[in-house]
Amino acid sequence: MEKVRIGIIGAGRIGKIHAENLIRHPHAEVTAVSDLYAGPELEAWAKERGIASVTKDSEALLKRPDVDAVFICSSTDTHVPLIRQAAEQGKHIFCEKPVSMDLRQTELAVEAASRAGVQLQVGFNRRFDHNFKRVREHVRAGAIGEPHLIKITSRDPAPPPEAYIRVSGGIFMDMMIHDFDMARFLSGSEVVEVYAQGGVLIDPAFAKYGDVDTAIATLRFANGALGVIDCSRKASYGYDQRVEVFGSKGSVAAANDYPNTAVLSTENGVLSDKPLHFFLERYQAAYAEEAERFIDCVLRAESVPVSGHDGWQAERIACAALLSLQQNRPVRLSEIGHERKGA
Amino acid sequence: MEKVRIGIIGAGRIGKIHAENLIRHPHAEVTAVSDLYAGPELEAWAKERGIASVTKDSEALLKRPDVDAVFICSSTDTHVPLIRQAAEQGKHIFCEKPVSMDLRQTELAVEAASRAGVQLQVGFNRRFDHNFKRVREHVRAGAIGEPHLIKITSRDPAPPPEAYIRVSGGIFMDMMIHDFDMARFLSGSEVVEVYAQGGVLIDPAFAKYGDVDTAIATLRFANGALGVIDCSRKASYGYDQRVEVFGSKGSVAAANDYPNTAVLSTENGVLSDKPLHFFLERYQAAYAEEAERFIDCVLRAESVPVSGHDGWQAERIACAALLSLQQNRPVRLSEIGHERKGA
Amino acid sequence: MEKVRIGIIGAGRIGKIHAENLIRHPHAEVTAVSDLYAGPELEAWAKERGIASVTKDSEALLKRPDVDAVFICSSTDTHVPLIRQAAEQGKHIFCEKPVSMDLRQTELAVEAASRAGVQLQVGFNRRFDHNFKRVREHVRAGAIGEPHLIKITSRDPAPPPEAYIRVSGGIFMDMMIHDFDMARFLSGSEVVEVYAQGGVLIDPAFAKYGDVDTAIATLRFANGALGVIDCSRKASYGYDQRVEVFGSKGSVAAANDYPNTAVLSTENGVLSDKPLHFFLERYQAAYAEEAERFIDCVLRAESVPVSGHDGWQAERIACAALLSLQQNRPVRLSEIGHERKGA
Amino acid sequence: MEKVRIGIIGAGRIGKIHAENLIRHPHAEVTAVSDLYAGPELEAWAKERGIASVTKDSEALLKRPDVDAVFICSSTDTHVPLIRQAAEQGKHIFCEKPVSMDLRQTELAVEAASRAGVQLQVGFNRRFDHNFKRVREHVRAGAIGEPHLIKITSRDPAPPPEAYIRVSGGIFMDMMIHDFDMARFLSGSEVVEVYAQGGVLIDPAFAKYGDVDTAIATLRFANGALGVIDCSRKASYGYDQRVEVFGSKGSVAAANDYPNTAVLSTENGVLSDKPLHFFLERYQAAYAEEAERFIDCVLRAESVPVSGHDGWQAERIACAALLSLQQNRPVRLSEIGHERKGA
Repeated sequence: MEKVRIGIIGAGRIGKIHAENLIRHPHAEVTAVSDLYAGPELEAWAKERGIASVTKDSEALLKRPDVDAVFICSSTDTHVPLIRQAAEQGKHIFCEKPVSMDLRQTELAVEAASRAGVQLQVGFNRRFDHNFKRVREHVRAGAIGEPHLIKITSRDPAPPPEAYIRVSGGIFMDMMIHDFDMARFLSGSEVVEVYAQGGVLIDPAFAKYGDVDTAIATLRFANGALGVIDCSRKASYGYDQRVEVFGSKGSVAAANDYPNTAVLSTENGVLSDKPLHFFLERYQAAYAEEAERFIDCVLRAESVPVSGHDGWQAERIACAALLSLQQNRPVRLSEIGHERKGA
Repeated sequence: MEKVRIGIIGAGRIGKIHAENLIRHPHAEVTAVSDLYAGPELEAWAKERGIASVTKDSEALLKRPDVDAVFICSSTDTHVPLIRQAAEQGKHIFCEKPVSMDLRQTELAVEAASRAGVQLQVGFNRRFDHNFKRVREHVRAGAIGEPHLIKITSRDPAPPPEAYIRVSGGIFMDMMIHDFDMARFLSGSEVVEVYAQGGVLIDPAFAKYGDVDTAIATLRFANGALGVIDCSRKASYGYDQRVEVFGSKGSVAAANDYPNTAVLSTENGVLSDKPLHFFLERYQAAYAEEAERFIDCVLRAESVPVSGHDGWQAERIACAALLSLQQNRPVRLSEIGHERKGA
Repeated sequence: MEKVRIGIIGAGRIGKIHAENLIRHPHAEVTAVSDLYAGPELEAWAKERGIASVTKDSEALLKRPDVDAVFICSSTDTHVPLIRQAAEQGKHIFCEKPVSMDLRQTELAVEAASRAGVQLQVGFNRRFDHNFKRVREHVRAGAIGEPHLIKITSRDPAPPPEAYIRVSGGIFMDMMIHDFDMARFLSGSEVVEVYAQGGVLIDPAFAKYGDVDTAIATLRFANGALGVIDCSRKASYGYDQRVEVFGSKGSVAAANDYPNTAVLSTENGVLSDKPLHFFLERYQAAYAEEAERFIDCVLRAESVPVSGHDGWQAERIACAALLSLQQNRPVRLSEIGHERKGA
Repeated sequence: MEKVRIGIIGAGRIGKIHAENLIRHPHAEVTAVSDLYAGPELEAWAKERGIASVTKDSEALLKRPDVDAVFICSSTDTHVPLIRQAAEQGKHIFCEKPVSMDLRQTELAVEAASRAGVQLQVGFNRRFDHNFKRVREHVRAGAIGEPHLIKITSRDPAPPPEAYIRVSGGIFMDMMIHDFDMARFLSGSEVVEVYAQGGVLIDPAFAKYGDVDTAIATLRFANGALGVIDCSRKASYGYDQRVEVFGSKGSVAAANDYPNTAVLSTENGVLSDKPLHFFLERYQAAYAEEAERFIDCVLRAESVPVSGHDGWQAERIACAALLSLQQNRPVRLSEIGHERKGA
């Protein structure tokens, strides 16, 4: 296989980002795209990019012989059935996060891929961010000694529309799940207990769906380290994504990215521009790299950098956090799902 | 009263710092100093600074007519009796934190001062730090809108000796108490619930005394805001004292102070010096200002900037945090002590 | 014209960068490439990118009907004849800097393009840098009032090989020419006088060719502002490209770009990574944007953002700087070349 | 001599700063102060600080047996006669910069002190700034290899009143003289040539007295390094005092000091406070240290850190810069004054 031929399932914003990145990859080719709402617009978009097949039917796409791997970018409720079908067809799979909102379903999907011997990579794009990668490099190189504290800040520039809030799965499964994965990524250890607090401070719509818009989760790791994540659905100054790992020999922290380094000094103070606005700006290169890594792993039959197990673990932590919020008590991970056999 | 005449009780490191600052104050005069271990060395020190009286007997000091106010800088277990005696003698009181490790005792001491009509200021020096004051100014000016998240980092450069660990009162009462006060100071709201996690990651000596050396406390405030404090007894790079307040319109954060702004760029990277080493360096000016403010308030008969009630509230939060750690559950402040009448 | 069909003349490093950027542009198509050393390698490279024609003969390329515009990326001595031939053939022209090392020749080339009614853009890529653009926006918006001082730092990570030094045209024409253009770009005024100092501090090879490797040029602008540029051929920590404009109401400065924001604090200090290594890393997006702007201007028949006149003026300043260095005296621009008629 | 007994000559702003610092010094005692305008106000000020003698007569002060050393803080035209008288009386001397505006007079004063065997320290306070000291330490430790470029920015927050401009001695002798000394201090080499440019961009009053308010001086050092200093009489954002030394192995730069580290992020951008306003704020600790070092050197009979020769050299460079500005040509230091014998 010289080029991996890709089918994109779900041509929304994120599906298109992946498609654009894959098109530029020398060893990838986007051969097909499916979307429930496929129509002339998507066809024009696909044509301009040399994507031969456009369909509303994801099953048809999954059966195409000119598709070696699929990017599942459709709504979360479709992920598990699509993964299982893709696995049956022997297609390698890249799936957006979360795999599902039902741990048991996620587990079955992961097992299906494993049984079929196909790759399954989960879309935790932030692992590929230039800043967070460098933090992890320092941690793994022992530059800060043993990790003691992991701190993650994760704030969106603006809350999603109510229609999205309703089906989002809640702040832990929709938003903080990225940070749960980041916590595992940076600490190199498993979360064993979570305590979550939250409030509705931004938009009453969240309360309507039993959700919160502001939350803090504290974590205890197997290696004894502690962690804390704070999330907000609305940071007026833009996307705020920072991490810090503190350990026995020091600390390593990553700040936000900014659109430029210009600094204006006047009698009013010292002013610079806001951070990059949102994930499309901040993680542009990270999206390209996660797709690139997936392609490389498929071609070389190597382990993907973010496995189905990683997806399942982050979901478990999100479930624990939700339970903790609901019951206002620390929740042990062992209360949630059960250890996967042979994971 | 043109000058406030001060007696220093307890001439250890912090007592001497206060003495030096008071000596420089145009409206203060240090007239007496008492210390259990007073001897030739302290006498020489006092003489060089024009302090007339040196004694081992704090009661004698408290009875001197040339003492208008006392700085209580002796060990924590002596604070409450000294406050009560000072109040009886009609002396104004500056007392180092914590007032005591027994909430009821603290309450009695605060009431004694109140009854006697003397000033009682508690030594939360960080409120006078140039960085944190500026953060609070922004918060109070509405620059960040309604506070949603308060984040405090508080790490010492090195753990204290075991002898100190034994009597310290534990990480919450000894160290994080400053941060509990800072949380109240910055948020402008009362803490209503605490959840604390901790571990012994630095020095097994802490475990010996039922203490931890690394801790995270999450807070819920009356106004709905959430907070998180992380503490470590050992930051290899020096004293790490940072805060952030995030709100509906933005965020304001204060970083550490550094000994200089020099930045060295070589083929090895971009290097600058570590933060100021510890509290003596970092809070030098803050100590001077808290003493100055106390003197001003005594002279003008105005409310002191950090009251006995502030001391009591921070201790309550520390008690709640300790209980939370012991029982691994969130603890409501209402479980601890009881609301002071007329506070 | 829906797409601008481009011929690349000179397929070295910079020619290939332009080609890659143009290939991605929706309204550009690279149809031909010429290079004196064209061979199987270049043919493979072209084929992979869908570039139909590869030749050694730039004249043949210039006559192709499927070429609307050319990117002249060959050696400096070929620029003027190629511009004149391209103009004769009615092709729009993007030419790398400098247009030539002979002001009169540059003038003739600019006139040839003008007479032929074709666009001529000069490759001052730094005008498209995100940092410098933002500085200029602030200056033009009046944020700093009237400019008083323009300061530019421009240092390469490592000196070029001797073979290049020999034909480079010297530090002013080869390297500082970018900064002369930047000075005009940021100040919005013309340079009227230059004084240059220099030395051979890095590599004796520079002395061999009458060149220097370290230089400072001070500038006087028509509007009364002063400027200073410092250049070095070797900054151990990587590419160092910073600017500052200081004026009656304040200052705006742009720092370097860094590969990440990770900061490591240990007992050895506070460490971050070096700036981006060299121009390929630092100006990647700027190269893309200058090509994009050229295409847009060709399509819309609008003025290009960096004209032949801009190229000529920067060369004039470089000539003045060289004369100043040789004679150790300030040199007025009016001594160099003469004002272009109708510029 | 256990304590150095000091007489202050000239009790203006800077004289009082020195007095305050000396009063706090354990081995200094301010015994007398003289000022042409001495009156009840100064007497009250002196009394409050325990300074016994206040006089209008500097000669009387210089003859007092209880004065071991003098701080000459009176107007520049009085410096040389006072130094000569003090030397005759065997008093050690701290003299504010510049020693005089006449190189020959400065030389005679320096010689007088030398002949009399008294210490003479010149008030280049910036050598004691925590930032610049650290830069120099790095340079001397070889961290940047051989110095190639020295860059100094020196901008005042607001121009002085016209009355001061008239007698200031001009921007080079009054203001940039500090930077000439800093250039020598940082480079560890002597300036051999200067070229200065300037303009009146802020206040026409400067033109009235043949002065400029904005200037750039480029320097050539004996060791081959180049330097550049930019000065402005008005930086709207406050005192701007930065340096950079670039060398064969890297660069070290020092930024301004700020009143706090608070950073406000809102939808309008990222804002922090302006730098410290002016020299009193920025160099508070540096003033204390230069006085302390003088006292130490007097007590230990060691060489003072800033000698009369240092004062004379900086004045020579200022003279060369002025000549350069007047004649618009580079001026060699050898044209100015002549090398001191045995310096």
